[in-house]
Amino acid sequence: MSDSLAQGILVTIIGEAVLQERLIRLLSKLGVSGYTIIPAQGGGSHGKRMGDIAGYNTNIELKTIVTLEISDQLLEDLKQYQATHALIAFRQTVEGLFD
Amino acid sequence: MSDSLAQGILVTIIGEAVLQERLIRLLSKLGVSGYTIIPAQGGGSHGKRMGDIAGYNTNIELKTIVTLEISDQLLEDLKQYQATHALIAFRQTVEGLFD
Amino acid sequence: MSDSLAQGILVTIIGEAVLQERLIRLLSKLGVSGYTIIPAQGGGSHGKRMGDIAGYNTNIELKTIVTLEISDQLLEDLKQYQATHALIAFRQTVEGLFD
Repeated sequence: MSDSLAQGILVTIIGEAVLQERLIRLLSKLGVSGYTIIPAQGGGSHGKRMGDIAGYNTNIELKTIVTLEISDQLLEDLKQYQATHALIAFRQTVEGLFD
Repeated sequence: MSDSLAQGILVTIIGEAVLQERLIRLLSKLGVSGYTIIPAQGGGSHGKRMGDIAGYNTNIELKTIVTLEISDQLLEDLKQYQATHALIAFRQTVEGLFD
Repeated sequence: MSDSLAQGILVTIIGEAVLQERLIRLLSKLGVSGYTIIPAQGGGSHGKRMGDIAGYNTNIELKTIVTLEISDQLLEDLKQYQATHALIAFRQTVEGLFD
């Protein structure tokens, strides 16, 4: 049955919430129209963030499924943000129901 | 040590929050009793959703770990919702601590 | 381009929110300084949780990217919580931008 499933690359970006609009514009520039965003609390080597205040989340987790080529470009384009903001990104192969 | 870890298929379903009860019933029908749901904001080709209103999330992300056979059936059963609702689903192999 | 991407093990822990501080201390003990936490609603074989009350989440999803060796130790150390709390954990190989 797997023949009927799409293959793609799930890219997960976890970064400061202040980057949200820039990340969406970057996806748009790459022709990516579908994504999901979840507010997240972060902890890291620069000290725990404010995530333990109810309703206050400094980070977001953005997920999108793209082609391998677009994931290459996306990860490359994300490097610029790492110099000035807390951001990680990673990719995995997935199969399922998506365009 | 990996010998002591369980192997399974992580299925992630991202869709409109209005589908939540139907998805839970579908899981129940397939004999899946454990799942996790996270409210999510979606953006897609049909326009950005209302996710930027604080506390308002139109999407959910539902995760469950099942056997390969159940993941086949689950993905098949989810196709019906794609005609009328925004929904994607994907699966990945995982190992770890779970039943 | 993949040559410039880091390789790591994404560990996802989903458990009762009451475990949050203990999980963070466990990560700290293992030398893991970076993690992300997302509030989650759980459903399981012990009955549906209170996740459908707005703003009330009994579970958390904690993600961290570590080495294979640390993921072995982390999963081993997590087993103690399964006797008394709802908790699952799983790992996957990822590549991307992270330390």
